Amino acid sequence: MFPEYDVIVVGAGHAGCEAAAAAANMGSKVLLITMNMQTIAQMSCNPAMGGVAKGQIVREIDALGGQSGLISDRTMIQFRMLNRSKGPAMWSPRCQSDRMLFALDWRQTLEDITLVDFWQDTVKEILIKDGKIRGVKTSLGIEISSKAVVLTNGTFLNGLIHIGEKNFGGGRTGEKAATGITEQLVTLGFETGRMKTGTPPRVDGRSLDYSRMEEQPGDENPGKFSYKETPRLTKQRSCWITYTNTKVHEILKTGFDKSPMFSGRIKGLGPRYCPSVEDKINRFADKDRHQIFVEPEGWTTVEVYVNGFSTSLPEDIQYKAMKEIPGFENVRMFRPGYAIEYDYFPPTQLKLTLETHLIEHLYFAGQINGTTGYEEAACQGLMAGVNAHLKINEQNPLILKRSEAYIGVLIDDLVNKGTEEPYRMFTSRAEYRTLLRQDNADIRLTEKSAALGLADEERLSLVKHKIDQTEKLVEELSREKVFPEEVNDLLAEFETSPIREKTSLLQLLKRPQLTMDHIKRIKPSMASWLESLSTDALEQGEIHIKYDSYIEKERLMVEKMNRMEDLMIVQNFNYDSVSALSFEGREKLKKTRPQTIGQASRISGVSPSDISVLMIHIGR
Amino acid sequence: MFPEYDVIVVGAGHAGCEAAAAAANMGSKVLLITMNMQTIAQMSCNPAMGGVAKGQIVREIDALGGQSGLISDRTMIQFRMLNRSKGPAMWSPRCQSDRMLFALDWRQTLEDITLVDFWQDTVKEILIKDGKIRGVKTSLGIEISSKAVVLTNGTFLNGLIHIGEKNFGGGRTGEKAATGITEQLVTLGFETGRMKTGTPPRVDGRSLDYSRMEEQPGDENPGKFSYKETPRLTKQRSCWITYTNTKVHEILKTGFDKSPMFSGRIKGLGPRYCPSVEDKINRFADKDRHQIFVEPEGWTTVEVYVNGFSTSLPEDIQYKAMKEIPGFENVRMFRPGYAIEYDYFPPTQLKLTLETHLIEHLYFAGQINGTTGYEEAACQGLMAGVNAHLKINEQNPLILKRSEAYIGVLIDDLVNKGTEEPYRMFTSRAEYRTLLRQDNADIRLTEKSAALGLADEERLSLVKHKIDQTEKLVEELSREKVFPEEVNDLLAEFETSPIREKTSLLQLLKRPQLTMDHIKRIKPSMASWLESLSTDALEQGEIHIKYDSYIEKERLMVEKMNRMEDLMIVQNFNYDSVSALSFEGREKLKKTRPQTIGQASRISGVSPSDISVLMIHIGR
Repeated sequence: MFPEYDVIVVGAGHAGCEAAAAAANMGSKVLLITMNMQTIAQMSCNPAMGGVAKGQIVREIDALGGQSGLISDRTMIQFRMLNRSKGPAMWSPRCQSDRMLFALDWRQTLEDITLVDFWQDTVKEILIKDGKIRGVKTSLGIEISSKAVVLTNGTFLNGLIHIGEKNFGGGRTGEKAATGITEQLVTLGFETGRMKTGTPPRVDGRSLDYSRMEEQPGDENPGKFSYKETPRLTKQRSCWITYTNTKVHEILKTGFDKSPMFSGRIKGLGPRYCPSVEDKINRFADKDRHQIFVEPEGWTTVEVYVNGFSTSLPEDIQYKAMKEIPGFENVRMFRPGYAIEYDYFPPTQLKLTLETHLIEHLYFAGQINGTTGYEEAACQGLMAGVNAHLKINEQNPLILKRSEAYIGVLIDDLVNKGTEEPYRMFTSRAEYRTLLRQDNADIRLTEKSAALGLADEERLSLVKHKIDQTEKLVEELSREKVFPEEVNDLLAEFETSPIREKTSLLQLLKRPQLTMDHIKRIKPSMASWLESLSTDALEQGEIHIKYDSYIEKERLMVEKMNRMEDLMIVQNFNYDSVSALSFEGREKLKKTRPQTIGQASRISGVSPSDISVLMIHIGR
Repeated sequence: MFPEYDVIVVGAGHAGCEAAAAAANMGSKVLLITMNMQTIAQMSCNPAMGGVAKGQIVREIDALGGQSGLISDRTMIQFRMLNRSKGPAMWSPRCQSDRMLFALDWRQTLEDITLVDFWQDTVKEILIKDGKIRGVKTSLGIEISSKAVVLTNGTFLNGLIHIGEKNFGGGRTGEKAATGITEQLVTLGFETGRMKTGTPPRVDGRSLDYSRMEEQPGDENPGKFSYKETPRLTKQRSCWITYTNTKVHEILKTGFDKSPMFSGRIKGLGPRYCPSVEDKINRFADKDRHQIFVEPEGWTTVEVYVNGFSTSLPEDIQYKAMKEIPGFENVRMFRPGYAIEYDYFPPTQLKLTLETHLIEHLYFAGQINGTTGYEEAACQGLMAGVNAHLKINEQNPLILKRSEAYIGVLIDDLVNKGTEEPYRMFTSRAEYRTLLRQDNADIRLTEKSAALGLADEERLSLVKHKIDQTEKLVEELSREKVFPEEVNDLLAEFETSPIREKTSLLQLLKRPQLTMDHIKRIKPSMASWLESLSTDALEQGEIHIKYDSYIEKERLMVEKMNRMEDLMIVQNFNYDSVSALSFEGREKLKKTRPQTIGQASRISGVSPSDISVLMIHIGR
């Protein structure tokens, strides 16, 4: 019934869709198996992509030739660049999406990839021969052969939904859970655990009084995610901000005795930085209000997402409490918030390629690895898809360094440190965040991806053009000089100190008070040339000039670290033969099997002296 | 948590959506409860609306102010008027729909109705007080109050899906079944039964070789369903025709021992006129081929519906057999066909308003009544919604006569005769089908509906305009006369006999060889006036003139019958007091409780002498 596939992807959420698209676009014959072809690429939680650190990930996915950026651009209803007032390392693109269009676009995108086949069914079992994947078996009892399998089961593995004292099986509300896979993997020796996540109620926008909320419109000049040519928004929908208050909190507290969180009925740990509202009022008892971010679910739908009000309290408590929020006096719910517990597999059981140590050609991506977030899931899917393709074709893996991408940080963190609670990306997790900016993901990653055949020619030529223009820009600005008498009046007008000698435009642009727009006025003869450059190149050049010293400092640190990162440890290295290693260090090293000394140094329990011992050994 | 609703509609398929829209548009406060707000108005089976007799129903729904016609028009990808070569009673509009857009449009349509609220949950129980509805209770344990409830559960009540020897609970593939309601209704005294329906595999259009099939494009001048101004298609997608063959049949037969149909595992009866392919080759063993109608699922999706290949044989047999169909040599399946068994309630338990006899203000619509088909479901939903609204507002019910609408025929058949197998509409079920044409549903129904506040002013004025123009047309054509010498040459050219005396254009148009286009040439001075009339009026006039004698004959029959239809029987009529009634007749009359002598005469088991006895009694 089925040909032999190169890669079978199980699950069609953000991770599964990116995995299928990436492997197929590189030339693998892919089968995407989903429980329901009508619900491909659902945004199960809020209708938004990007945000702090997450927006950078979407840009990286895009730079690598993934689809999330393109699809977000085509289906967004609002765009904002967060943290514009901070340094460029903090700038983070974020969009509101039309939930329905986002899912439809993903499905269309996948259908447009010749090498992606589809099958609606539930995978019950992976098939293994000699410790290596040979396919999957489905709930219909069908065996389908493949060289590799990527599991992206999201919250579906033994999913258990909680609302107050009630709970019932389900992968999302209204959808079935998936059983069988966890049980089999445990038999095979995998460790598993439970995690928890939650989602707020959805409400009827027609019942809200927006005049009592604060409007949050999109950016005046909305940006976008993809480095490719995608259309920019010409109209946008606003979000709205309102706040809980002590009355809301008091009502919520009346439900605490029925809360599955507080009663201990929920065993799994939830996302620390995306807590339920009951968790917030419990942990921050001194705060008398919390922000509620009211997000429209699409261009025309009246459905509204109540961000900040995730809860698993009984639905009548949810309702009563919400009614006390300004603007929500007459709120009508579409469905209550709920918590969901699901199985995950501690990611320390993975290689940096997201392949499992135990079963060759088996890859895990997304929430199954203990992460939270669409962007975190999508990038893992992409990397798993790419690496599955490379491995079965006996090519070198694609492993991004911590200095190259947030994606590198994410996977390195997961694999080396594991995670006990849903892992979410933050800029603070990246030690080289000045290098890992949203504006340069293409420069960091596209060439590498194009070499693998994933990022296409168009992307590569766009990046080359941007690099050329940026270099030319820096060169011209450092060559062009101005004299004090020529510009000091203008500088005074711009509230920046006068110059005393001939000074390059580059030096001037370093000043925090001056931007490229000022440069145009300082040197009008260059204005039209500057305007002929792309916005991307101008931004890139300005950042490089302004933040040169920070960037340079981090680059030097990276170089130093990379020496360790470049010291490879053979995969079957015999740690038992190195008697000088500490007992704990040896145990952890044997479990994680780091691929480099750099990776080894980041494993918790491996001491600096263990690293020295190892380096001496490797050096031999 | 909830206000008191006027009407709660359970289920958001074709029946539920029309019920909610109709009741709300008449002024009822409606709550639509669905298990999943992402799957409102799914086309669970083929992506098409209308067809023989069904197209007439869509036109009737539209004429009454329902939504199915409007939504079909906005989301169709192909339109054909079937049976154009036959008499106008047989003309049947049919469209192919974009499955995703159809569902999205329905959801948007419902969201745009102020009085429709939504709630995602599963109804487990109806709440009753003193034999009358007081609301529903959901799986979350929530009690929601309402004056009336419309149940439109489709195939979800104890839904059981069969594929070969496997079976599992589900309301549709990938979706959960609903339990609780049947059990409660049985306790309350309702009779219930099992029915079965099925659906073919969905396949990947990229894997088909259309060059081996016969193209079936849409009409050159595509029509539409709604009498309102909806845009006409400017481009269309084709369907394709191919055939099974003896090799396909032989392969299918190898699976017969595993067929849930033939093994007796499926207890419910399936739709006679939409049988599974295994049923076809079993019942018509002499036929060596059956037609397969290949339907695209939308404008851009590659998903394809294999109409004519409904099956519940094991999926590998489905696949092997399909591969032998010309054009399907390399077919890739998205999902196998399957059969589904579900609970229905014999509709003899209903009044003509679709209210149950047992529980006041409880209405059933759609597959729960034993029907099959989107159109059959939608029209019942509309009528149940309308009648629920009218009843709780103590207004007279809307009951359409068999002479007024296919909808009248459908409900009258269901309520009086019941059905043991999925009931589908056919033109042959309507004894007055010459009157119940697709071209005059607006004339038949809109005024009646507008009087109730459902059909809007725009509809009413469009109908009035059409009637005016049609009358004027008939009048002018009967007034305008031509002489033999003036037209006989042209009549010869048109291959129709010459006239011998002054003859009206109306008389000429009665000739089968002549159409309105010929009339324009016969009387060029009228051409521009004729062209100024609406297409609808021209068509209407031509039909009236050509088929006048048939129409008149049926109208006389209707008048005769209506005398019986107008003889009302009081709802609590004491049949036991009429000793002359036959034993069977009395039993059936007590069960069905007909509202008129006409209805009584159509109940199986009620004899003509019973009717005479009754008429004497009523006459008193």
